[in-house]
Amino acid sequence: MKTKKKLKPLAAVVGAGRTKFGELWYNNPEELMTEAGIKAVESVEGGLMRNDLQACYFGSFLYQVTNKLALVPGYMARELGMNIPMSHTEAACGSGGSALYNACLGIRSGEYDVVLVGGFEMMTDRSGKIIDDLMFAGDPHEFDAGYTFAGLYASMMARYIHDYGDGSNGRCREALALVTCKNHHHAIGNKYAQFRREFSMNDVFNSPLVADPIRMLHCSPISDGAVALVVVSPEVAKKYTDTPIYIVGSQQATDDISICSRESLTGIKATRLAMEKVLKETSMTMGDIHVAEVHDCFTIEEILFLEDSGFCKRGEGWKIVNDSYESFKGSKHIPYVNGDSALVVNAGGGLKADGHPVGATGVRQVYECFKQLRGEAGGNQVDKELNVALCHNIGGTGGIATVHILVGDL
Amino acid sequence: MKTKKKLKPLAAVVGAGRTKFGELWYNNPEELMTEAGIKAVESVEGGLMRNDLQACYFGSFLYQVTNKLALVPGYMARELGMNIPMSHTEAACGSGGSALYNACLGIRSGEYDVVLVGGFEMMTDRSGKIIDDLMFAGDPHEFDAGYTFAGLYASMMARYIHDYGDGSNGRCREALALVTCKNHHHAIGNKYAQFRREFSMNDVFNSPLVADPIRMLHCSPISDGAVALVVVSPEVAKKYTDTPIYIVGSQQATDDISICSRESLTGIKATRLAMEKVLKETSMTMGDIHVAEVHDCFTIEEILFLEDSGFCKRGEGWKIVNDSYESFKGSKHIPYVNGDSALVVNAGGGLKADGHPVGATGVRQVYECFKQLRGEAGGNQVDKELNVALCHNIGGTGGIATVHILVGDL
Repeated sequence: MKTKKKLKPLAAVVGAGRTKFGELWYNNPEELMTEAGIKAVESVEGGLMRNDLQACYFGSFLYQVTNKLALVPGYMARELGMNIPMSHTEAACGSGGSALYNACLGIRSGEYDVVLVGGFEMMTDRSGKIIDDLMFAGDPHEFDAGYTFAGLYASMMARYIHDYGDGSNGRCREALALVTCKNHHHAIGNKYAQFRREFSMNDVFNSPLVADPIRMLHCSPISDGAVALVVVSPEVAKKYTDTPIYIVGSQQATDDISICSRESLTGIKATRLAMEKVLKETSMTMGDIHVAEVHDCFTIEEILFLEDSGFCKRGEGWKIVNDSYESFKGSKHIPYVNGDSALVVNAGGGLKADGHPVGATGVRQVYECFKQLRGEAGGNQVDKELNVALCHNIGGTGGIATVHILVGDL
Repeated sequence: MKTKKKLKPLAAVVGAGRTKFGELWYNNPEELMTEAGIKAVESVEGGLMRNDLQACYFGSFLYQVTNKLALVPGYMARELGMNIPMSHTEAACGSGGSALYNACLGIRSGEYDVVLVGGFEMMTDRSGKIIDDLMFAGDPHEFDAGYTFAGLYASMMARYIHDYGDGSNGRCREALALVTCKNHHHAIGNKYAQFRREFSMNDVFNSPLVADPIRMLHCSPISDGAVALVVVSPEVAKKYTDTPIYIVGSQQATDDISICSRESLTGIKATRLAMEKVLKETSMTMGDIHVAEVHDCFTIEEILFLEDSGFCKRGEGWKIVNDSYESFKGSKHIPYVNGDSALVVNAGGGLKADGHPVGATGVRQVYECFKQLRGEAGGNQVDKELNVALCHNIGGTGGIATVHILVGDL
């Protein structure tokens, strides 16, 4: 399904590697990142020598409090045994997307032809403290007011239900549970996923209440893991593989860190702005996208993305979820359908089921799209011809959003 | 003193602003960064509207533990009231240089013409805990072995004295104290500096022992502060000012985070590699540089820079310091002289006297060079014609080094 657009490649992904996501207490962050990095480098069919790498970009968030470490470039220089330039970007849960965004700029500058992009996080051995730590990505006043991150998204979910779903006899709440059912269903075939089991709508409704209306099974998990990509300039891509995946859109937008100061609780402005820019950059519409990795940290966020991206109208995301789930129940993947558009969202399980080691997530999304577009996604390969994929990574409650569009064939 | 080289500008600095450095407990990090940012924007003579800014790059290190905050892009989006792309880089004490390095790549990519580069840190209200926090920029095994950061540099200083200075009847140790005397002398005219007082060699020798042979007055202080630059593409620079300062070299290198794993304790490999690259990039030698802002976190590091950069031979840095101090004692600035080369190092006081709010330091160095090259450095203006400046910013004990070369006239 080759796209008919004339696309200008910004960079190309020629290799990708990842660890399993989950509770990986026996590792330290550098070991996880190294495992993913080696897999990424070894996955390059044309052969990539360590000395081919000219720079590295890493995304990670909470390493200072979870691991009492910083100066990621120095740690990674040791692991790599090299002295190349290295940048580490921190943008909370959007750190991985931010690292890739900067890597693309680095390649576009002409300074580098071959870089490694990595994302990692170790979160699970902080026990309950991690819930407080995550509030670093919120406003301190929100924390002081007693908010947790689930609480912030609960405000958004409650407002969404109030504004768009209260007259639906509970169908809107069902949609917010069906996102969980769908993403866990998708993860069954993903051997790296943290959770590979089905959940029913009743499982979601019966799971413990975390912050009304958010229940445990509306939330993505606390995870450890790492992912790496080999990203090269379009000019050298074919030297490394016959099937590079081209990055044709790379955009970012920011917004006030506090949800209290936002224009709206039922939409993420940073997503909307980044999406407008990336669709303009690629002359695409959402109808051109075949698969999307969406930042479903809480299920409400996947529905907001459908509306913020323009895939459907404001307030109608939950209806799309409901109708699509009904239509495709039992199929390997459950696409969201709106008119002529059919979009498979989170084919490998998303943050919800694949896991959410925060700094790794934005890079994991590109890993998944890379595999899907090459037809190499194994058990969770989408069963249709694919050429255009989108990755959507946000930080905090939407203080930053980074989006990338990838194509298999220009 | 126009350089004779044919130089290719990578970017241009057209505005700069900073706060005072010191104990600024009455502020929070966003307020400091905002004060510096507003000053930088308002300093652009041709007028810069907020909406001219297309992206921001921030450097900061310990904000997670000192201020329990992260997602810097979201905080800064609030302060700026804008939704532009923002990146935050963390590279310990090298965070500011790393932010500028990435900003230059962003401009060179063609994606942006006008960006803001900021660095900030709030360190002073952590009391004694800050000493442990700073070890995040070292290897955890070094921390577990009882090392502080002063301890790590003490190992380097002791080895340097052993290898190169033990036969000097204490003259090497005098040089390590004279760096303090010189930099505090330079800071007298700097109205933003944390310490504006002279120290004698005896003051240094009589100051408390921190980690033998490092005494308190060999160390840069714990500081709060922020600095900002307006960086633009060379093509638009003259639109904003008649006197842009051009960035003609921008290079970075990394090394193993642990000093135990380094090739040598008496040299910083990352500095050496980054310097080789930046001198090649600009076709310059150290003799072409008029002023340099050098990362003097401990006085040994300023001497190592003289050797790592090639300004003098290995093991002879201390002799240059001694001889130069003797020759120029009492003059407003005390240049380091080696043959035909005369280099004013840390004209505003360096980290030692101006202060070292770690994330701000790499940006403060460029602020100082910008002012010096424009002849706007006020009380600490170097009294000779200047055209070429160098900034050297490292993270940790040399896990990363970033260098920039700036010129006033191409």
